[in-house]
Amino acid sequence: MNNKEEAMKKHYEWRGKIEVVSRAPVKNKEQLSLAYTPGVAEPCLAIQADYEKSFELTRRWNLVAVITDGSAVLGLGDIGPEAGMPVMEGKCALFKEFADVDAFPLCLRTKDVDELVRTIYLLSGSFGGINLEDISAPRCFEIERRLKELCDIPVFHDDQHGTAVITGAALLNALRLVDKKIEEIRCVISGAGAAGIAITKHLLKLGAQHIMLCNRSGIVCEGAEGLNPACVEISKVTNREKMRGTLADAMRGADVFIGVSAPGIVTEDMVRSMAEDAIVFPMSNPVPEVDPAVAKKAGARIIGTGRSDYPNQINNVEAFPGIFRGALDVRASDINDDMKMAASLAIASLVSEEELCEDYILPPAFDERIGKTVAQAVAQAARKSGVARI
Amino acid sequence: MNNKEEAMKKHYEWRGKIEVVSRAPVKNKEQLSLAYTPGVAEPCLAIQADYEKSFELTRRWNLVAVITDGSAVLGLGDIGPEAGMPVMEGKCALFKEFADVDAFPLCLRTKDVDELVRTIYLLSGSFGGINLEDISAPRCFEIERRLKELCDIPVFHDDQHGTAVITGAALLNALRLVDKKIEEIRCVISGAGAAGIAITKHLLKLGAQHIMLCNRSGIVCEGAEGLNPACVEISKVTNREKMRGTLADAMRGADVFIGVSAPGIVTEDMVRSMAEDAIVFPMSNPVPEVDPAVAKKAGARIIGTGRSDYPNQINNVEAFPGIFRGALDVRASDINDDMKMAASLAIASLVSEEELCEDYILPPAFDERIGKTVAQAVAQAARKSGVARI
Repeated sequence: MNNKEEAMKKHYEWRGKIEVVSRAPVKNKEQLSLAYTPGVAEPCLAIQADYEKSFELTRRWNLVAVITDGSAVLGLGDIGPEAGMPVMEGKCALFKEFADVDAFPLCLRTKDVDELVRTIYLLSGSFGGINLEDISAPRCFEIERRLKELCDIPVFHDDQHGTAVITGAALLNALRLVDKKIEEIRCVISGAGAAGIAITKHLLKLGAQHIMLCNRSGIVCEGAEGLNPACVEISKVTNREKMRGTLADAMRGADVFIGVSAPGIVTEDMVRSMAEDAIVFPMSNPVPEVDPAVAKKAGARIIGTGRSDYPNQINNVEAFPGIFRGALDVRASDINDDMKMAASLAIASLVSEEELCEDYILPPAFDERIGKTVAQAVAQAARKSGVARI
Repeated sequence: MNNKEEAMKKHYEWRGKIEVVSRAPVKNKEQLSLAYTPGVAEPCLAIQADYEKSFELTRRWNLVAVITDGSAVLGLGDIGPEAGMPVMEGKCALFKEFADVDAFPLCLRTKDVDELVRTIYLLSGSFGGINLEDISAPRCFEIERRLKELCDIPVFHDDQHGTAVITGAALLNALRLVDKKIEEIRCVISGAGAAGIAITKHLLKLGAQHIMLCNRSGIVCEGAEGLNPACVEISKVTNREKMRGTLADAMRGADVFIGVSAPGIVTEDMVRSMAEDAIVFPMSNPVPEVDPAVAKKAGARIIGTGRSDYPNQINNVEAFPGIFRGALDVRASDINDDMKMAASLAIASLVSEEELCEDYILPPAFDERIGKTVAQAVAQAARKSGVARI
């Protein structure tokens, strides 16, 4: 049986990858009177008197909503909310297994930005965090920005920030290995969607100074026509030489290529034109921007992809569970840049000098230290940056 | 330790009465590739091709949202969404324990009717049913009516229909005992809120022909001024003699009193003025409309309350879990009048002729037959009335 057939069979067997269970026994009258009426009136009144008690007397302290509108599900595109549910349930299963976070999937039947923002805000009092998922760009930027302003709990679009955090971790270790400084590298990022924009911003925070972002029209350049608002913003802090040209032009002499764009758009020659000790992360899934074997042949020294069947899988499952675990543990009101940087550094730190090599720049996804290490670093960064409430 | 203290202690221990767990193991790469990428793409595409598959490949087939706006929580009133959560979580625990239904609590931060309707509709693709809870009257009537029109899954306001179903069951058995026909009785219902209106409609469906509904101003009478739309509607099918007067006037000579109104508003004399073999259900909680001992002294033959410390507790935990179990089992698109009537009859049937007596008109809440018996009757009624999809 191939993976597709096996996956279908398993989904029919599971009949849902999450389940809601009761933590309060209600087997007799006395238990009923404690978990429900009349006893339940007391915790209600306690929360009414002190809102923060909602994080102690209900599940809110550990509960994250995984929310989509089904508009950009995996590589499948706009398949609608109901069809997006298997991915959201899968994400919730990962939250539980990797960081003991209770996550609940909600697929909303609208793609209107105002309506999504309002709906998610109205729900937010029932959760301790919001994980936005598979919402198409550029709508995802406005939705997240407005929700972060409205909500008193963390709002985190994983396609942006989870990807950025793990890519940042991979890059930091790759640079350790080739002995280049992040401040000095020339970095090309292909794809100006949710992930590409977020990776760009994150690498800037981590110290990168020379980034060129490329979209379908080529290098994003300040003042160019037809840029969407997200690209206009990013054009002011990238490509300071105001270079115009194609992806191939951008890659010439670059130290790093990061692809979150489309399969097969990078040729062997384009990789060959890069600087010595080139780092190439073609992360388009399932088909990378350039085949790893081809990139290797063209002289790339370190290669990482989104796939589990090549070395150096760059997988955001190493990021989001621990990030939310840390945020929930200190009842953070936000997941800010400091917390994301701390997460990248924490993941990178799990590869020792002795282990670090071309085929081992990240800990494997099932390394059990990851969730806890990331959580501790994120919680500490939350405290330092003033967004921790406990 | 009294019940209040014990309940608070337990709520601090539980830290939430529900928990979301994973049904899909993700302990290694292969499992991850089945539950998440790339395998998860297959069930997504299957649902995109056939919407009904969302009830087979995700948890939707067993999942009910318990939704409130916090506007009428227990006897506590408008305490807001976060403070309402302990009740909603308790309700979800009951769903799981009594009928193995996965229920998830959502407390919404708005009381605007349009916004509640739209928000709940937008969520409805993630669930197999919607249980509305503790939403104040008369807003609850419009919210439920509009959602029933919009949604392709059952929408059920438990404060209305759960209460009506269990009250109907109690009344049917009480009438068996006193050997009166429901078509012939004179019935007084005190309280024209969510429960009172729903009980009135349900008893009419069950065959009652002479009902007088009383609100704070006295008997609801067709053509009276100041009636809200729900009372105007009900005034056309109750009190056909167009009697005006007080609750005391209504009760004179009545066979049945049902109270879902306010503590202590029924006097000993009012009970004494009722017909022979009077049935008195003062269900205001925790303090009934009339003390059961007083009602007994005044000649009432059968007395039922909402409390567990008197005989004949009329508790909707006997109704809603089995009703949703039955609706989910046949993927019903609605919970209609036929299904609610079937539920009342099914609960009533669980008291045998031998068992039936003044102090035993309903099976006890923890009778394990109830959930399954109600579910089967409801599923059958759904099939007969054409709302079952499987």
